[in-house]
Amino acid sequence: MSICLERRYRFSASHLYRRPEWDEEANRRAFGKCANLPGHGHNYRLFVTVTGEVDPLTGFLVDLAELDRVVDREVVQALDHQHLNSAVEEFRDDKSRSGKMKIPSSENLVAWIRDRLEAALPPGVVLVKVRLEEDEDLAAEWNDR
Amino acid sequence: MSICLERRYRFSASHLYRRPEWDEEANRRAFGKCANLPGHGHNYRLFVTVTGEVDPLTGFLVDLAELDRVVDREVVQALDHQHLNSAVEEFRDDKSRSGKMKIPSSENLVAWIRDRLEAALPPGVVLVKVRLEEDEDLAAEWNDR
Amino acid sequence: MSICLERRYRFSASHLYRRPEWDEEANRRAFGKCANLPGHGHNYRLFVTVTGEVDPLTGFLVDLAELDRVVDREVVQALDHQHLNSAVEEFRDDKSRSGKMKIPSSENLVAWIRDRLEAALPPGVVLVKVRLEEDEDLAAEWNDR
Amino acid sequence: MSICLERRYRFSASHLYRRPEWDEEANRRAFGKCANLPGHGHNYRLFVTVTGEVDPLTGFLVDLAELDRVVDREVVQALDHQHLNSAVEEFRDDKSRSGKMKIPSSENLVAWIRDRLEAALPPGVVLVKVRLEEDEDLAAEWNDR
Amino acid sequence: MSICLERRYRFSASHLYRRPEWDEEANRRAFGKCANLPGHGHNYRLFVTVTGEVDPLTGFLVDLAELDRVVDREVVQALDHQHLNSAVEEFRDDKSRSGKMKIPSSENLVAWIRDRLEAALPPGVVLVKVRLEEDEDLAAEWNDR
Amino acid sequence: MSICLERRYRFSASHLYRRPEWDEEANRRAFGKCANLPGHGHNYRLFVTVTGEVDPLTGFLVDLAELDRVVDREVVQALDHQHLNSAVEEFRDDKSRSGKMKIPSSENLVAWIRDRLEAALPPGVVLVKVRLEEDEDLAAEWNDR
Repeated sequence: MSICLERRYRFSASHLYRRPEWDEEANRRAFGKCANLPGHGHNYRLFVTVTGEVDPLTGFLVDLAELDRVVDREVVQALDHQHLNSAVEEFRDDKSRSGKMKIPSSENLVAWIRDRLEAALPPGVVLVKVRLEEDEDLAAEWNDR
Repeated sequence: MSICLERRYRFSASHLYRRPEWDEEANRRAFGKCANLPGHGHNYRLFVTVTGEVDPLTGFLVDLAELDRVVDREVVQALDHQHLNSAVEEFRDDKSRSGKMKIPSSENLVAWIRDRLEAALPPGVVLVKVRLEEDEDLAAEWNDR
Repeated sequence: MSICLERRYRFSASHLYRRPEWDEEANRRAFGKCANLPGHGHNYRLFVTVTGEVDPLTGFLVDLAELDRVVDREVVQALDHQHLNSAVEEFRDDKSRSGKMKIPSSENLVAWIRDRLEAALPPGVVLVKVRLEEDEDLAAEWNDR
Repeated sequence: MSICLERRYRFSASHLYRRPEWDEEANRRAFGKCANLPGHGHNYRLFVTVTGEVDPLTGFLVDLAELDRVVDREVVQALDHQHLNSAVEEFRDDKSRSGKMKIPSSENLVAWIRDRLEAALPPGVVLVKVRLEEDEDLAAEWNDR
Repeated sequence: MSICLERRYRFSASHLYRRPEWDEEANRRAFGKCANLPGHGHNYRLFVTVTGEVDPLTGFLVDLAELDRVVDREVVQALDHQHLNSAVEEFRDDKSRSGKMKIPSSENLVAWIRDRLEAALPPGVVLVKVRLEEDEDLAAEWNDR
Repeated sequence: MSICLERRYRFSASHLYRRPEWDEEANRRAFGKCANLPGHGHNYRLFVTVTGEVDPLTGFLVDLAELDRVVDREVVQALDHQHLNSAVEEFRDDKSRSGKMKIPSSENLVAWIRDRLEAALPPGVVLVKVRLEEDEDLAAEWNDR
């Protein structure tokens, strides 16, 4: 029988939707008030779901303390109380990235988090879902289906 | 990598569980206090989950304003502050439907919503889940598994 | 030291805002879609706060089972799965009350609940607050300040 | 179209993480403060999701009253206001089980609940998910994928 | 009998804790990661509680549509998707205010909101409480006690 | 203008309602399943509300880090993952206290927390409310009215 464990994390960050190679009007049309400088913010809730073998002695499928350390180091420390457009390289609008920078939308942010976690989880711990709630009305989710 | 977006909507409506071709006792036995005339009500929470290609420029897999317009027009405007047994044709107990009318249960309501949204979503936006919470203890869900 | 106890209850009901002595247009102007016939509904959350002497042996300021029985009998049984405009006499729009009927607004409903509970609570149990949440954005409250 | 119904239940219980065949130090290292005697506790939230044929007359895919009776008898009555390490045989640390007892972790508890429900659900009602929230930051889940 | 009505509003904003007349070290010591440039953000929840005479005909103590218009104009439009340190004059760190600018803490922000609402509410509507939740663990509140 | 700050804390604990000088039947009659040995448990949520002078430079009425340290040391460390009937002296049923021990009800627990915090808060920080939620339906509260 396959069991999953879902753990919730939180971080507060600000972000901005604005393409440097577009003019003001194009940014407004695409992003509305999300284009306001220098950005607004959210209390993000992050749900990380993993699966794995349940250890018959401890009853755990993952060492929770280790999972917390990984998520804290890879995601929370990197994003909490930061401006996403500068804290994350692919969301940075420096000149060299112009045209290639990504907007820190929930879609792109959840994909970034998923990649970071996938690369950092200990062996035997399988990531099955990453869910990111921007506020109580909007969530982005990746799952392994 | 496939990403989904889940958006929450809300509406308040009243409804009634009662088959017109059954007598009072049969209605009571099947539906209990949900058969009370003219009906009781709920604050429904509706979660619509869609997927699609993430636009590399905007970072969006759906135009949220358009999704909101569709759900508002097809579902919220149709049901909010309404009595479901008269607002929705298939839940109506007029004589012509006797024996064919459907009860506005959460199961039937979520199926009705799913059909309405499936038919109205813009091209490229794929509906993957519709979740309807009647109250904090009961939810009905359709998903594309 | 004075301690209070707050207990949460729930009921689902439908209601309608409509004055029988007003014409359609006046009702629409005052009540908007809350005037839709035969009414819409909510999952109400009711918070009843009481105070009293803490019994040194049990550590209780109220017998919770008795409080639950009183609130269930006086409020939940009376309102759950009912249409407030007919279940409660002062919200009824029968001809004899025309001009004197009350609208089942959150304000009037919380006052009605408070009066019912005040009259029925066991001796030594003092009602200090009654809070009624119609949905997650609106609450009416009475307190003894 | 396949529809699921999710129902929420609650129970409060205490538990303890401690292997009788390990010494104090090994228990502390593996379980930290969860090894504190005689245990701590949680308000568990249990979400049971089932599917089945929607009855064309009632609009129900399951008789909710019957589902509630089954879950109440098999899970809530068995666990509510109990110490999981004694209420459930496989979590009991009596001598005969030493080395075979299971720790009442969320992973093991959700598996135990799933087995109990699977065996007791009425014909035609298919269990598709069991989710157990220990607190607002941790949930274990079984699903039929 | 005095009844209050509490209405919930929401806005997302970013802010920064940093005194322009202090050096980096002093700002870090006082504000920690809240001093990170250009700021982080929150989903604020605002609860506005008012009292007044309940109209015997409508059952309302305030015209909710008007209350919503006032709070939207005075608070939500002014702060939503903004950076509080520039959107609100007293939180602005322009040179002329140096030493007099206020930090956009929850305490100062709730006081600012309270003053704005007090000045703008229609006659007969009395503000009794303003509660501002920065996240699920921290709230600032003004009340008229 | 007087502003309050409310901070939320959490801890998980087990407890037992049982008077050592009463027989089994009397304990059952008074406490029902809360008398089950060795006890059940809850995820407690604790809301601590303080007031004080808002510092014109920092905008803070309390040093949050210091408030967190005090509440963590005085309450969370003392109670989290503990059995309240042994962790707190006045709830202990050792022979010497027989007849004087207190039941760890929410009423008694919130009073104990309030006394601990009152004695430990830094000068200038005034405790105005302590609210303890045992589960989503029951809360005990002390306030300074």
